[in-house]
Amino acid sequence: MKLGFVGLGNMGLPMAKNLLAAGHEVVVWNRTAARAEPLVRQGARVAATPAEAAKGAEVVFSMLADDRAAEAVALGPQGIIEGLSKGAVHVSSSTISVALSQKLTDAHASAGQGYVSSPVFGRPEAADAKQLWVLAAGAKADVERCRPALEALGRGLTVLGEQASMANVAKLSGNFLIAAMLETLAEAFAFTRKSGIEPKQFMELFQSVFARSPIFERYAQAIADEKYSPAGFAMRLGLKDVGLVLDAARAAEVPMPLASLVRDQYLGGVAQGHGDLDWSALGALVAERAGLPGPR
Amino acid sequence: MKLGFVGLGNMGLPMAKNLLAAGHEVVVWNRTAARAEPLVRQGARVAATPAEAAKGAEVVFSMLADDRAAEAVALGPQGIIEGLSKGAVHVSSSTISVALSQKLTDAHASAGQGYVSSPVFGRPEAADAKQLWVLAAGAKADVERCRPALEALGRGLTVLGEQASMANVAKLSGNFLIAAMLETLAEAFAFTRKSGIEPKQFMELFQSVFARSPIFERYAQAIADEKYSPAGFAMRLGLKDVGLVLDAARAAEVPMPLASLVRDQYLGGVAQGHGDLDWSALGALVAERAGLPGPR
Amino acid sequence: MKLGFVGLGNMGLPMAKNLLAAGHEVVVWNRTAARAEPLVRQGARVAATPAEAAKGAEVVFSMLADDRAAEAVALGPQGIIEGLSKGAVHVSSSTISVALSQKLTDAHASAGQGYVSSPVFGRPEAADAKQLWVLAAGAKADVERCRPALEALGRGLTVLGEQASMANVAKLSGNFLIAAMLETLAEAFAFTRKSGIEPKQFMELFQSVFARSPIFERYAQAIADEKYSPAGFAMRLGLKDVGLVLDAARAAEVPMPLASLVRDQYLGGVAQGHGDLDWSALGALVAERAGLPGPR
Amino acid sequence: MKLGFVGLGNMGLPMAKNLLAAGHEVVVWNRTAARAEPLVRQGARVAATPAEAAKGAEVVFSMLADDRAAEAVALGPQGIIEGLSKGAVHVSSSTISVALSQKLTDAHASAGQGYVSSPVFGRPEAADAKQLWVLAAGAKADVERCRPALEALGRGLTVLGEQASMANVAKLSGNFLIAAMLETLAEAFAFTRKSGIEPKQFMELFQSVFARSPIFERYAQAIADEKYSPAGFAMRLGLKDVGLVLDAARAAEVPMPLASLVRDQYLGGVAQGHGDLDWSALGALVAERAGLPGPR
Repeated sequence: MKLGFVGLGNMGLPMAKNLLAAGHEVVVWNRTAARAEPLVRQGARVAATPAEAAKGAEVVFSMLADDRAAEAVALGPQGIIEGLSKGAVHVSSSTISVALSQKLTDAHASAGQGYVSSPVFGRPEAADAKQLWVLAAGAKADVERCRPALEALGRGLTVLGEQASMANVAKLSGNFLIAAMLETLAEAFAFTRKSGIEPKQFMELFQSVFARSPIFERYAQAIADEKYSPAGFAMRLGLKDVGLVLDAARAAEVPMPLASLVRDQYLGGVAQGHGDLDWSALGALVAERAGLPGPR
Repeated sequence: MKLGFVGLGNMGLPMAKNLLAAGHEVVVWNRTAARAEPLVRQGARVAATPAEAAKGAEVVFSMLADDRAAEAVALGPQGIIEGLSKGAVHVSSSTISVALSQKLTDAHASAGQGYVSSPVFGRPEAADAKQLWVLAAGAKADVERCRPALEALGRGLTVLGEQASMANVAKLSGNFLIAAMLETLAEAFAFTRKSGIEPKQFMELFQSVFARSPIFERYAQAIADEKYSPAGFAMRLGLKDVGLVLDAARAAEVPMPLASLVRDQYLGGVAQGHGDLDWSALGALVAERAGLPGPR
Repeated sequence: MKLGFVGLGNMGLPMAKNLLAAGHEVVVWNRTAARAEPLVRQGARVAATPAEAAKGAEVVFSMLADDRAAEAVALGPQGIIEGLSKGAVHVSSSTISVALSQKLTDAHASAGQGYVSSPVFGRPEAADAKQLWVLAAGAKADVERCRPALEALGRGLTVLGEQASMANVAKLSGNFLIAAMLETLAEAFAFTRKSGIEPKQFMELFQSVFARSPIFERYAQAIADEKYSPAGFAMRLGLKDVGLVLDAARAAEVPMPLASLVRDQYLGGVAQGHGDLDWSALGALVAERAGLPGPR
Repeated sequence: MKLGFVGLGNMGLPMAKNLLAAGHEVVVWNRTAARAEPLVRQGARVAATPAEAAKGAEVVFSMLADDRAAEAVALGPQGIIEGLSKGAVHVSSSTISVALSQKLTDAHASAGQGYVSSPVFGRPEAADAKQLWVLAAGAKADVERCRPALEALGRGLTVLGEQASMANVAKLSGNFLIAAMLETLAEAFAFTRKSGIEPKQFMELFQSVFARSPIFERYAQAIADEKYSPAGFAMRLGLKDVGLVLDAARAAEVPMPLASLVRDQYLGGVAQGHGDLDWSALGALVAERAGLPGPR
């Protein structure tokens, strides 16, 4: 395929490399043109503007650091939208806001162009090793048209429907999952360490019991299915145990705000009469506050 | 070995069964004696009191629902402490408070008896299938003496030093990890669902990218090692992305208190000049507030 | 009246002084007897134990630093309960737990004695100037019997019914009100200061607009009456404004966890369809999570 | 003075009325022109566009519901900026974002016009009764020029320096103070009510002890002065008392997330060695996390 690629940062560079390696023709653009050199050796051509990189391409990728940069290369002067042919597709791989993704969808639609939102999971090393996990959402025909290129970028692809911004929702949710896990680990290590357990010891335990454990996917499935009874472990027991964590952390003088948050959620669940549901019914408590169906 | 086992609930019953199956002699006690019947058929003897179950045993296990019950069978009238021989060991497998564990340590020490705290990870089905993960902490000689019995209960054993209550700290931390993950998943599913992604779709993505992924153990290792630079993904980027999550969740009307918490942590980290550390440096921010060494 | 007074700390000493000044006969006890000297000059007699201070008294006060001390002087060896006559009353003014207050109620009832819980609001200076505000709860006859002494301590008295521990609930709630206001002020000053407003300037504004303002009592009345419509200022406007606070605080790099909490409360309220209620309907949202009636 | 007034909602209408009553000439504009009728009877002239209302005015006020409306009437087609003379001043009284206030500052400066940000505290009834408290920030000469009009609106005026957006920071902080107090009251009433105290009873206590009390201003002053020692009431006692609140609330099954937040703040303060500072040193803990000077 004839491709464009705009944005050759730590992620963009190895992604463009893999597109070339898969046999595609690629015209690249980067603010600092020197970044493109290794790609030129692979056969890439360098454009002077994003618009030029988009010109004649069936699909043009963009991979930028933030909303400001992503919007500038797409909609700014000499941006992608100016060069892209009618019917061709802009694939945006940047981690951007849901709002900008909707704006790009509308802008390209007005220009008679396609827009696919396609953020990825994985670090630069994974990009280099073609081990990214790729998301995609947008009009079905547009996604299908891009599929060969998207599949050249990683080890798998999840398509999230026809509304492009859903891929951004999913990407942001993934980053939230990691950030939340970091807070979780931070509190667990602070608590155990100040209580007298060496981080190395707790790490071994984490490895043995939690790392790559099916626990989390079983609970994710329960929440996806909204199946909270019969309880494997009841919410009132969850409340008891998180209460014991907080008591011990108070004695050890370790603030654990996430434990406090979960404690308050369970306390509310029990107070509202849901103490016999499974402790994963946090899924229903949180949903209820968002105006979705709650516990039954 | 000659063993006692006090408390034949959903967890205690299969644990006692496995001790019998491993060839140990077991005298059992339960508030409702009828629960012991299947064990009797396996060769167990039924005692009339916890003290009697402990009498003559090298090691007596207890597995009760909460602090109140665990304290009653250990230290109450006709409790374990009354029947246990000097030098013999009480292994407490209940999920109890750190404070009660310390109280039991002292009480047994005063009586010339050993005390090993040995809570377990796993549900009743895992107990039945000998797939528990067993923790143990207490005087080295006591732990070693119990080891054959402890190894008969599960698929592995982690010893956490000579202070018995450390095993309770570790067990509670494990339950905290799960509860925190449940809140995380609850918020992620509410956010994606209300934004328009089917739970089934998000579940597939979770399976592909996060389930059994090495991500979490790599980050746990970073926090255990307090290694936060060079950044793989900088805290200021974490702040940006969690900010985007909250913006999108505000638009979709989904309260995400855990996302707010993490946002405020990152915002503080950046405000204090740590924005270039890896986003896992939440480990250092949380540690600092506990009076442990913070970010450097 | 013949009174006893146990505990002559920063609060107890001026309180005992005022009882003497009101013409009561007072026998005092303190761990460090020398603290009693100024009272002796006023005519107090010094007892050797709490029990002795209680002996022959119609009413014995206790004012200690925490649960441990309060329990020790009441129920410990040579404690108040040993010396107090049947029908006489123990007035506990310490800020203690609700649980200990209930335990003291039961213990004194078993001994045929009365128990009145009577914590106070005010600092040592207020105690000295007879400007405390005094709470009291307990059996009606007991409270009435103590009334002359209670009225000698401060500028006013609120009686909170016949269940003694309700006075402790009220006292703790009052301290919570202050602590919460401290967090509120802390965040407001950090936000304004880092944004570029001098603390002195913001203090002047606080004085002009908020200090001694009827705003807070009007809102407290609305919550007491559960009257949330018609809205004076709608919850959706509250959500908007707290959102603007957080946006500005993000830009200024000021974490405001309380603002985040309130934002999430409002977001949930709006998501659940209550956006047109007055923003004080936080009262109903919080009540609902406690299993009380929620928004209508 | 010759004034313009744009936006005759619940707040704008009585404000414009008071400007007319003070003898100013006022040209008004409102999206729904009929709203202007009572003002016309007072002598106001009705303009067809915001630009026309601004034309010839020394000062033009705007009072709109949100950022979108405020930006539209100021910078949109036929907006204030188009009609306002060079050297004349736009006074924006809307509660808008700090970011929009900065944008308006820049836009008017580029047009050679003045911009004063002047949000107000008070409900429509207060506006009607000329009881608003008025904030103002902007170039000194501009503020002085508007002063007669600003003073016609309320009972007092606080000037917050030359950077217009500081008035928005202050207004938002004020609304945050109220919203935070609402959460505080909501939790206190839920806790006392579910514990067994009638809301009416707790309201009486609130009236007696907290309403119009100097407590809050004394603490605000301490935080403004960063004076946290000697402690009137030490942080470790604050930790103890908020801990007792949470224990009692757990027993009564009342989630109190704000109490949890404050508890974690105090626990962190104590863990970091600040337990002997006054409990108002929350001011320093919060400041430190914002990158400002922390506890000493």
